[in-house]
Amino acid sequence: MRVDIWSDIACPWCYVGKARFDKAVQELEGKVAVEVRHRSFELDPNREPGVAEAVVPMIAKKYGISPAQAQANEYKLGELAQLEGLEYRTENRDHGNTFDLHRLLHLASDRGLEAEVWKAFYIANFADEASIFDRERVVAVSVAAGLDEAEVNAVLDNPERYKDAVRADEAEAAALGANGVPFFVIDEKYGVSGAQPTALFTEILEKAWDEKKPAITTIAGADDAEACGPEGCAI
Amino acid sequence: MRVDIWSDIACPWCYVGKARFDKAVQELEGKVAVEVRHRSFELDPNREPGVAEAVVPMIAKKYGISPAQAQANEYKLGELAQLEGLEYRTENRDHGNTFDLHRLLHLASDRGLEAEVWKAFYIANFADEASIFDRERVVAVSVAAGLDEAEVNAVLDNPERYKDAVRADEAEAAALGANGVPFFVIDEKYGVSGAQPTALFTEILEKAWDEKKPAITTIAGADDAEACGPEGCAI
Repeated sequence: MRVDIWSDIACPWCYVGKARFDKAVQELEGKVAVEVRHRSFELDPNREPGVAEAVVPMIAKKYGISPAQAQANEYKLGELAQLEGLEYRTENRDHGNTFDLHRLLHLASDRGLEAEVWKAFYIANFADEASIFDRERVVAVSVAAGLDEAEVNAVLDNPERYKDAVRADEAEAAALGANGVPFFVIDEKYGVSGAQPTALFTEILEKAWDEKKPAITTIAGADDAEACGPEGCAI
Repeated sequence: MRVDIWSDIACPWCYVGKARFDKAVQELEGKVAVEVRHRSFELDPNREPGVAEAVVPMIAKKYGISPAQAQANEYKLGELAQLEGLEYRTENRDHGNTFDLHRLLHLASDRGLEAEVWKAFYIANFADEASIFDRERVVAVSVAAGLDEAEVNAVLDNPERYKDAVRADEAEAAALGANGVPFFVIDEKYGVSGAQPTALFTEILEKAWDEKKPAITTIAGADDAEACGPEGCAI
């Protein structure tokens, strides 16, 4: 059963939500087979590429809250992340344009390294001290996750590479009515918006799985005798 | 939308039912896209291969009816076939083991000639004077329908070729509860048993088509605020 997960690397609820979802998948191991497909969603597509900014003042300014409140929000996210077993750097995180990261994530999908590179980018953005909004660092993290250095550089050097793939993911999210992320689509049937509790994911995964291969409904017409069987053809 | 049709070449209701189904598909042209996949079903798998028998006495003996009644049944089938625009040889048809025909039909599927060869075999069995239960004739009909003569002979010479494909089709029919043919499965969802009227096929094809891509149902959890959107991340 396929689960499409739209996320942005710069989205803390995506980082937390993915861990909650993963726990549900783990709980259902042996009962429900899940194949995840990560999909691109930029929260902030108009942000200038190549320019990183500290998260706390950016958030404070954007939402008209005090820097102290913005910092408190980061601490809260850090606590929630920790509950899911995730490292979260609550101070001095930075933020930037994620388009190039999404293009590399599509390269990773093509190379069979989708899960590995999403995970590496999340950790690089939310847990590590070094900024992921830095080319050298992106290359290093990508290569550590298994991608080929020359290929990574070739993608970064050519802004057309995987551009359409990112845009197609975003267009599909818009068509599905997803305004925010994480957004999970289970078996092309159920959408789950937000970092829902593991129990909700468990329930909906089981439900979709049970419904997956519906027993066919056989239609009996006015005269269902016009068939041939081992005993012959009804006339 | 895929429609799987289990049939046997030796099944008159399959011949008639396919024509009724085809009319429904034609009526829905431009509205409903249908991709047919023919599946194997032997009505009489234990019949000795290579030995053909006249239909009328075989039917009379098998069902304990008079030869006149068996012949009357053939006339009735001929009339119903004619209503669908099909030729039907009502006298002196013969009957035999269809396993080799099914193996060749699987070769035809592999060569992109599935529809052509099913049609050619039906006509050869129900309309033509020459028997299809004759190797030279099978080869000639297959080649006329587009198959390669050497390939046809290679399949006929090796009883293992496509044996598993035929058996797999039959196992799937059994799993779906199909005891007779024709048996239509529309979009893995609706089963239609027998040579139903065209109107029934039209109705069920439209219904399945309309249901095909369900709008996703989005699940809102207890707290659906834990998401990030263009306006930021809810905390």
